[in-house]
Amino acid sequence: MAEPSPQPIVTGRSRLYAIIGDPIEQVKSPEILNPIMQRAGKAGILVPMRIAPADLETAIRGIKAIGNFDGIIITVPHKVRMLALVDDVLPTGRRVGAINAVRRERDGRWVGDMFDGKGMVAGLRKHGHEPKGKRALLVGAGGAGSAVGFALAEAGVSRLTVHDIDPDKAERLARGIAAAFPDAGAGVGPANATGYELVVNATPIGMRPGDPSPLDSTGFHSGMVVADVIILPHDTPLLAAARECGCAVMGGRPMTEGQAEEMARFLGMTGG
Amino acid sequence: MAEPSPQPIVTGRSRLYAIIGDPIEQVKSPEILNPIMQRAGKAGILVPMRIAPADLETAIRGIKAIGNFDGIIITVPHKVRMLALVDDVLPTGRRVGAINAVRRERDGRWVGDMFDGKGMVAGLRKHGHEPKGKRALLVGAGGAGSAVGFALAEAGVSRLTVHDIDPDKAERLARGIAAAFPDAGAGVGPANATGYELVVNATPIGMRPGDPSPLDSTGFHSGMVVADVIILPHDTPLLAAARECGCAVMGGRPMTEGQAEEMARFLGMTGG
Repeated sequence: MAEPSPQPIVTGRSRLYAIIGDPIEQVKSPEILNPIMQRAGKAGILVPMRIAPADLETAIRGIKAIGNFDGIIITVPHKVRMLALVDDVLPTGRRVGAINAVRRERDGRWVGDMFDGKGMVAGLRKHGHEPKGKRALLVGAGGAGSAVGFALAEAGVSRLTVHDIDPDKAERLARGIAAAFPDAGAGVGPANATGYELVVNATPIGMRPGDPSPLDSTGFHSGMVVADVIILPHDTPLLAAARECGCAVMGGRPMTEGQAEEMARFLGMTGG
Repeated sequence: MAEPSPQPIVTGRSRLYAIIGDPIEQVKSPEILNPIMQRAGKAGILVPMRIAPADLETAIRGIKAIGNFDGIIITVPHKVRMLALVDDVLPTGRRVGAINAVRRERDGRWVGDMFDGKGMVAGLRKHGHEPKGKRALLVGAGGAGSAVGFALAEAGVSRLTVHDIDPDKAERLARGIAAAFPDAGAGVGPANATGYELVVNATPIGMRPGDPSPLDSTGFHSGMVVADVIILPHDTPLLAAARECGCAVMGGRPMTEGQAEEMARFLGMTGG
């Protein structure tokens, strides 16, 4: 058995962080970031908070009223709506139109940014899948999808097809990416893997047993990389099908791990 | 050095508890109750939350909107006002007019009760100071004072003089105690230790450097027990003066420890 990770000892002086989402049981951030704080000597603790969509405003107002609360990590389905609940958003978050981390500044303002895309690209690179020059299909143009799309474009993919069950959403994202990264070949297209070298599912389809496939996988072949933003189940039906066809696969956890240190720095978890 | 206490590993499945107060840095409940949960195999974590009086309603509304939040421990200055923010109060809490623990029932209702008084009496007994038959002076008739007053009466003190800077508050508490425990000799009187065997400070006076004494200590003598509900500083000026006069002294921590197991049971920290 591995050594247990160092856990912060919670005291009256602990600073608070939460990861918010619905569902919440699947999140891995507490297990990843609490040991980072502990090793950095930061007296803080990150806890999970399940917040239903209807309760988001009320819960965030409450969190802001807690004096020793320093930051929030945001997961599905709150990444887009959190934009409207902070005082300022940094450039990546503004471009993506969604945020997954918010911190309280010294002056009391809450400022958000988006790290999902950087996390996905860092995870792909760590697993030996350089996105640069690849033809990529992105399924899902919500918060996570937008983040991944901008980051793949920034990383230099040669083509980036965006699909969403809502065509207007896909179109909006593709246009936004094309404006910021003209060389990425951003456009919209069907959810069909044929002809791509990199396929990313950025929808929640696959989280629940019996979910259909988020895309047409008849074009899966070895030499293709298939990634999923879903963390739990670890092995979504999409990834299982891709593996069977000889694709390289990557689940959602490397995306979380890939952004952990940068996010910890942004949230002040590594100092003071 | 002592073995570090076992710390819960926070995961996405952790249930949440908070201790709320202002200030909050001095609280010891996380260090006492987190190891109790960990030893009981309960996947939960208790964290401190500093909530200013003006923000109490907003913060509590937010906490109630968090789906995996199971309970709240309440410290100064929120014990009285929390009464109005829960759905139901158990008999001790109703009698005292203040609560220091609230749990979410299975049906979603929030129910509060008061454990401070039992904690003070348990702490005194553990240190060999049986309150039964003693002449007691209680300074402070707020949330903590009321809890301690009712519990001392229930424990069988032969006389119980209540003092508060607000005479009406002292009068109300003394009348309430006299009604519930006619043999306790409850009444009001000056904050002067002369003639008592047990003196309890239940005001926050002594928390801040330079605070005056909460009572006239010219009557301190050996054979007298002087207790303080204040946890930090560990040694309040009152306790230091009492020790110098040969009194037995007890700080606030035994009161917290004395109620820990009963409170943990009430909050569901010891099972499930």
